[in-house]
Amino acid sequence: MDILRHSTAHCMAMAVQKLFKGVKFAVGPNIENGFYYDFALPAKASAKAGRDRSFSPEDLPKIEKKMKELIKKDLQFKKREVSLIEAKKIFKNQPYKLELIKDLQKEKIKKVTVYTLGDFIDLCKGPHIKTTKEIKFDAFKLTSLAGAYWKGSEDNKMLQRIYGTVFKTKKELDTYLKQQKEAEKRDHRTLGQRLELFMLDDEVGQGLPLWLPKGAFVRHKIMEFALNTYLEKGYELVSTPHIASESLWKHSGHLEFYKEGMYDSFGIEDEQYRLKPMNCPLQVKMYNSRPRSYRELPLRWTEMGTVYRYEKSGTLHGLTRVRGFTQDDAHIICSPDQLHKELTEALKLTLYILETFGFKDFEMNLSIRDPKNKKKFIGGDQGWKQAEGALKKAMASVGYKKYVLDVGGAVFYGPKIDVKVADSLGRQWQLSTIQFDFNPPGRFKMKYTDKDGLNKEPFMIHRAILGSLERFMGVYIEHVGGAFPVWLSPVQAQIIPVGQKFNKYGEKIKKQLQENNIRVELNDNDETLGKKIRNGQIQKIPYLLIVGEKEEKVDSIAVRDRTKGDLGLMKINKFIEKIKKEIEEKK
Amino acid sequence: MDILRHSTAHCMAMAVQKLFKGVKFAVGPNIENGFYYDFALPAKASAKAGRDRSFSPEDLPKIEKKMKELIKKDLQFKKREVSLIEAKKIFKNQPYKLELIKDLQKEKIKKVTVYTLGDFIDLCKGPHIKTTKEIKFDAFKLTSLAGAYWKGSEDNKMLQRIYGTVFKTKKELDTYLKQQKEAEKRDHRTLGQRLELFMLDDEVGQGLPLWLPKGAFVRHKIMEFALNTYLEKGYELVSTPHIASESLWKHSGHLEFYKEGMYDSFGIEDEQYRLKPMNCPLQVKMYNSRPRSYRELPLRWTEMGTVYRYEKSGTLHGLTRVRGFTQDDAHIICSPDQLHKELTEALKLTLYILETFGFKDFEMNLSIRDPKNKKKFIGGDQGWKQAEGALKKAMASVGYKKYVLDVGGAVFYGPKIDVKVADSLGRQWQLSTIQFDFNPPGRFKMKYTDKDGLNKEPFMIHRAILGSLERFMGVYIEHVGGAFPVWLSPVQAQIIPVGQKFNKYGEKIKKQLQENNIRVELNDNDETLGKKIRNGQIQKIPYLLIVGEKEEKVDSIAVRDRTKGDLGLMKINKFIEKIKKEIEEKK
Repeated sequence: MDILRHSTAHCMAMAVQKLFKGVKFAVGPNIENGFYYDFALPAKASAKAGRDRSFSPEDLPKIEKKMKELIKKDLQFKKREVSLIEAKKIFKNQPYKLELIKDLQKEKIKKVTVYTLGDFIDLCKGPHIKTTKEIKFDAFKLTSLAGAYWKGSEDNKMLQRIYGTVFKTKKELDTYLKQQKEAEKRDHRTLGQRLELFMLDDEVGQGLPLWLPKGAFVRHKIMEFALNTYLEKGYELVSTPHIASESLWKHSGHLEFYKEGMYDSFGIEDEQYRLKPMNCPLQVKMYNSRPRSYRELPLRWTEMGTVYRYEKSGTLHGLTRVRGFTQDDAHIICSPDQLHKELTEALKLTLYILETFGFKDFEMNLSIRDPKNKKKFIGGDQGWKQAEGALKKAMASVGYKKYVLDVGGAVFYGPKIDVKVADSLGRQWQLSTIQFDFNPPGRFKMKYTDKDGLNKEPFMIHRAILGSLERFMGVYIEHVGGAFPVWLSPVQAQIIPVGQKFNKYGEKIKKQLQENNIRVELNDNDETLGKKIRNGQIQKIPYLLIVGEKEEKVDSIAVRDRTKGDLGLMKINKFIEKIKKEIEEKK
Repeated sequence: MDILRHSTAHCMAMAVQKLFKGVKFAVGPNIENGFYYDFALPAKASAKAGRDRSFSPEDLPKIEKKMKELIKKDLQFKKREVSLIEAKKIFKNQPYKLELIKDLQKEKIKKVTVYTLGDFIDLCKGPHIKTTKEIKFDAFKLTSLAGAYWKGSEDNKMLQRIYGTVFKTKKELDTYLKQQKEAEKRDHRTLGQRLELFMLDDEVGQGLPLWLPKGAFVRHKIMEFALNTYLEKGYELVSTPHIASESLWKHSGHLEFYKEGMYDSFGIEDEQYRLKPMNCPLQVKMYNSRPRSYRELPLRWTEMGTVYRYEKSGTLHGLTRVRGFTQDDAHIICSPDQLHKELTEALKLTLYILETFGFKDFEMNLSIRDPKNKKKFIGGDQGWKQAEGALKKAMASVGYKKYVLDVGGAVFYGPKIDVKVADSLGRQWQLSTIQFDFNPPGRFKMKYTDKDGLNKEPFMIHRAILGSLERFMGVYIEHVGGAFPVWLSPVQAQIIPVGQKFNKYGEKIKKQLQENNIRVELNDNDETLGKKIRNGQIQKIPYLLIVGEKEEKVDSIAVRDRTKGDLGLMKINKFIEKIKKEIEEKK
C-alpha cells in the first residue's frame, strides 16, 4: 500500500509537470492514508515578480484528469543508479533536488537512485510499482492543498503541498472518504463552537481552552463521575497548587529531564517559580510530610490537577493538543507485595470508566526499556524486571494476554501501559496510562516503616484514566458526534409548545421535570414549530417534548427522541420514569 | 479605652526604664485589644559588643511587678508644650526620639508636646489619663514579646517589642484572655496539622497550601454544596485557564491598576504570559464570543477559579492570607431593570450559604466612592449614583437597613457590599463580597441587543460568597474548632471494637453503614479501648461506635457523640436513621 501511495505521488508530480511549466519539485512521500508532494510554483507573468503563485482548489480536478491520462498510458517506473555528479546534471534545473543531493554528498554517499516515469524523473530511493496501470483509475483522489515549509523549517521558503489518497479499490476509497466526511462533521472544533461547548481566543493565549457553560457542565459531570468512582474504590482526594518554586523542580529532576516541556520561570521576591507540568512532586511532598507506616499502604491519592506544558504553537489542535489541561491524576504508593493487586485494580477501573463512556474496543500497549540502551533509563535491572513483569501479569489478569510491545518506548523513569480506545469511527486514541515511577522514591527519599521495623522504599505508580480532561472531551465529542448521552447532556429535554397558548402547560411540565432533577428548558420563543424542532435537533437535545391541545387534554407530551424520532404520545410520569432510568444507567 | 491603653504603654515604658539601665525608647501606641512599646536594649557587659540583648519571657512578670508599684504611687501624667530645640535637649540620649523630632522638623512643625510620668518623659501627642490609679491593678497584663523593625522597615534596626493588654476591670481582662486562649486552641494552623487537613512547604513555595486528603475532602464538599446551590439558583458553570497573555491583562487594565498584585510575566515563544489574579476578563471574553440578546440576560456565570496574587512573604498567614486561592467567583451580567432583583437574590443567596455553615451574626459594609476624590474612580456620576442606590435598596430588601458605611472605600471600578461574619468566638471576618464593575463593559465593549434593537451596555456584578476557599476554610476551621459538622466530616463515624474478637462484628457494621453512604472507619488496631476513644476524640470524629459482647448480642452499638458524650446503646438502624437525618439537614 505504501508503495502504491508513493508511486501515485510520482504520478501526480508528473501530471503537475505537464500542466504547470517551470514547476520545481521538493519531496513527495507516502503518509498515513495517502501521500503528498511539495512543489514550488513560479509566478505567472501576470503575478507580482518574485512571488510564487498558489495552486487553487480548481486545479485539483485538472491534475486528477491529467493523472488519469497518464495511468491509461501504462507508463513504466524505471529505476537507475547514478553517481552524484550525474544526478546533479539530471536535476540542474531543480534547486530542491540539488540541495538534497548536496546533503547526501555531506554524508559521503556516492551513488543515488533515480526513477523515471515517462518524461518525469525523480530522485528517489523507491521502491515503486511496475506501471501506472496498478493505480486504479477510480481509486485515487487529490484531497487538499496546504502550505508547507521546505524541510519543515520556518526559516525556509513556503512551498505548495498537494495531498492525495489512493486505495486498491474504489470501494475502499469511498469508505475512506465517507469516514473522512463523517470525521469532519464530528470535528470537535466545529461542534465545540456550534454547541457552544468551549472556545479558544488568541488574546487569552493559544492552546488555552475556555469552557463555555454547556461544555463546562459536561466536563464537570465527567469529572464528578470519575472522582466519585475513585473515592468509592478507596482513593482519597488531594489538591495541590499550580505553581511551585524552582527548587522543587530541581529536586524532582524536572528541570533536568523535562525542561523543554515547561514554561519559563517567573519571580516572586527572590525566588523563581514555574507552572507545574506534572502533579507528582507535590503529592510526594505530602507523602513525606510525616513518617509513614506499612499500615497506611496502599495510599491512593487522586487529584483533578491542571498542568501546563509547553507545546509548539504549530502543533496545537483544538482540545486534543493544548497547553493547559486537567488530569484525573492519581498516585498509588504501595509495598512490593501489593503491586499486583493495585495494578490489576487500576486496570479494571480503567476499563470500567472507559466502558461507561461507551468505548468498547481497547488496545493495550506495553512500553518497556530498551535493554541495549539502559543508560537512557533510571533504576536498576531488578526494578525494571519486576515492574515490567508486574504490568504483563496485570494485563493478563484482566484478560489482555495480547498487547502491543514497544521496546524502548518506556518513560525514563519506568515502564508503562497505555490504553488506546477506538472511537465510533474506528479511529484509535490514546487516553489512559499506568506508569511505574522509579524517580521520586529515590530522589525524595520516600520511605515507609515495614512490619519488621525497617525503613523501606515504596513503589510509586502514576495513573490517569481519562488522561487529559481536555483531550478526553475532544475525543468524546467526536465519538458521540456532539450528542452526549442523557446523563451528561446539559439540557436533557426541551419542551416545545405548538403555540403561545400552550406555554402555560409547558411551564407546568417544566416544573414537574425539574422537581425530578431533570435538566429541562422551555422554548417559548415566538418561532414556528418546525424551526423549534430543527433548533432542538441541531443542539442535539436528547428529547424534544411537543405540547399542544391534544397533549394537554390527556396530561401527556409528544416525545421526539434525538435518534429514534417520534415516540408518540406519552404520559408525563411515564416519560419521567423512562428518562430517570436512562440517567441512572448512564445512557 | 484607647487612652487607657496608651497610658498603660507609658507606664510600662517607665517600669522598663527603672529596670533596664540605658534602654532606648522608640514608639508605644495603643492597638486593637491592647498596646505595645518598642525598645532598644543595650548589650550587657557580658554580651557581645554591639549586639543588643533581648527581653526574655521571665522579664515580663518583673516589669508587671514594677508597673504595679508605679500604679500604687498614683503618678500624674503631665503635659507640656515645648519647642523642637527644647525637645532635642530633653531627648538628647534618646536617638529614636531625636529621629522623630527631625522628621517633625522636616514637616515644618514648630512645637511638640511631651508627657512626664514621674521621672519618665516621652514625646507624645496624648491624650492620657490623669493618674496611674486609673489603671486597675489587676486589669492589665503583658502578653508577649516580638522583634520589630524601627519604623517597620527591614532596612532599619530590629527593636524589642513588648505587647500588653489592659481593660477597665479584671473581669473584662479575664474574658479577653480566656478568649485568646480559646483562639489559640482553635488556630487553624495548629488544627490543620493535627487533623492533617493541609500543609505548607517552603520548597513548594510560601503561601501555597497543599490539601491533604481530609482537608481536600472537606474543601471539595464545601465547593460541591456551593456549586450545586448556585446551579439550582440559575447560575451556569464556566471554567477558564490559570494563565493568559499580557495583551489580555493590558486590555483589561490589570497591568495598569493591579500590577503590584500580580506575579511576574513569563514567556512562551514570543508572547508574555501572567498568572490570573482575577477571573473576570476571561469570563468577559466568553460573553463577547458572540452577539448577545436581551433574551439571554441575566447571565449568571460561576466558576471555582484559582487565582494567584502577590502578597509580601511577611504578611502570609496560614490559610487566611495566601498567594494562591480558589474563589467561588461569579459574574452576573444584566440589564438595568434586572439590577435590583439580581442584587437582592445575590444577597439572599449569600446569607443562605453562610447560615448553612452556622454563621448567624452578619455585618453589612457598604463601600462607596469618595465624592471629593472622583478622579480615583472610573465611571460617571450617574452610574455611581445608580449603583450605590441599588446596593442600599438590596440590603434593605433583605432586612439590612443598618450597615457600616465606608466613604471612599469602594474599589476603583465600582461600589461594593462586603459581608462580615462573626465566628463562634465573636471575631469578625470578611468573607463575601458583591461588587459593581464599571470597567469591563467599557473596556471590552460588552453589549447586548435590547428589545428596541439598539446595542446597550449591560451591568456587570462580581460576587463571591465563600470568597477565597482557602480563607473560608481557615476561618471555618477556627469557627468549628476543627469539629466539622457531620455532613462535612471526612470520617463521620468510627467503629471501635472493645477487643480483637469483635473486629468481625465491627466489619459487619462498617459494611452496613457504607451501604448507606456513611463515611465510616473501623479501628481494629491492637490498642486499648481508652486510647482508641482518645484518638477518636482528638480527630474530632462526630460519632465513635463502640462494639463488644453486649452490643453484638442485641445487634446494637454504643454511641459516643463528640459533644454530648455517651448516648448509650442504639440499634444500628436507628443510628443510621439519626445520622442520615443530620447529614440531610447539614448538621
